[in-house]
Amino acid sequence: MKFFEDIRVGETSEIGRHIFTAEDIKAFAARFDPQPFHLDEAAAARSHFGRLCASGWHTACVWMRLMIDYRRREDEGRRARGEAVALLGPSPGFRDLKWTKPVYVGDTITYGTEVVEMRPLNSRPGWGMIFMRNTGVNQRGEPVISFVSSAFVECRDREPQAS
Amino acid sequence: MKFFEDIRVGETSEIGRHIFTAEDIKAFAARFDPQPFHLDEAAAARSHFGRLCASGWHTACVWMRLMIDYRRREDEGRRARGEAVALLGPSPGFRDLKWTKPVYVGDTITYGTEVVEMRPLNSRPGWGMIFMRNTGVNQRGEPVISFVSSAFVECRDREPQAS
Repeated sequence: MKFFEDIRVGETSEIGRHIFTAEDIKAFAARFDPQPFHLDEAAAARSHFGRLCASGWHTACVWMRLMIDYRRREDEGRRARGEAVALLGPSPGFRDLKWTKPVYVGDTITYGTEVVEMRPLNSRPGWGMIFMRNTGVNQRGEPVISFVSSAFVECRDREPQAS
Repeated sequence: MKFFEDIRVGETSEIGRHIFTAEDIKAFAARFDPQPFHLDEAAAARSHFGRLCASGWHTACVWMRLMIDYRRREDEGRRARGEAVALLGPSPGFRDLKWTKPVYVGDTITYGTEVVEMRPLNSRPGWGMIFMRNTGVNQRGEPVISFVSSAFVECRDREPQAS
């Protein structure tokens, strides 16, 4: 992670993409969202969706996984360049999650993030809070998910060994 | 599901409970949130959490599963009593998700829901929108998750066969 002081509102990143296969959609749904249109092609064809589609929670959880992988790649790059890596605290939550289109079987969703707000934390010196708008867009350019997440990020002045 | 006209703001329901085992926490994290404090007891002991704890997304996904199971049980009861069952449309999303305490290994989380707002939909005759505050509370009575979800619910006058 970058340090709080090095982050700017308006910064965007593509964090990764994921193809939602039938196996993938059904495995998630069987565990967490067993509705017919997430579990079975024939039942989905008879539903208002018309085709097998992913649970909205699945679309959100894939974002989490890609974000973890993205941050790891970025931090490995920083370490390889001899740069200090900021700590990231736990997320207190998020707001305004919208599922704007179904994610159908075979769709490729590209996830991106944009810093939309940041503030230093008087209550927790050495840490700042950042807010990011996270989005997923399908291969036709249609947004399928959007939400604003928040996270605690370490400030550079909390890190005496910073290079 | 109840019909829109039969729902009241302030109605509450306990939808179910779940024990978060180590196996359960690690399996979810390995797939969607591979951070050390969700994957490994020793790494969690060294983290700010101090003990193995569940991904916040896992806590949310278990709510989805328990809500599906709860609605099925309720609808089976209605059918057994010869009552009509209302359709529930897809959820457009939710807002204000807060993870207020970690969910530690062995915790039992009890999930509940309260209707907090409802409105008929002029844009979609025969349907209403309901907003519910969903919460999870651990065995010590501490809230661990809270969010407001929304859903389209069928109105009784859309259902000519209603008994």
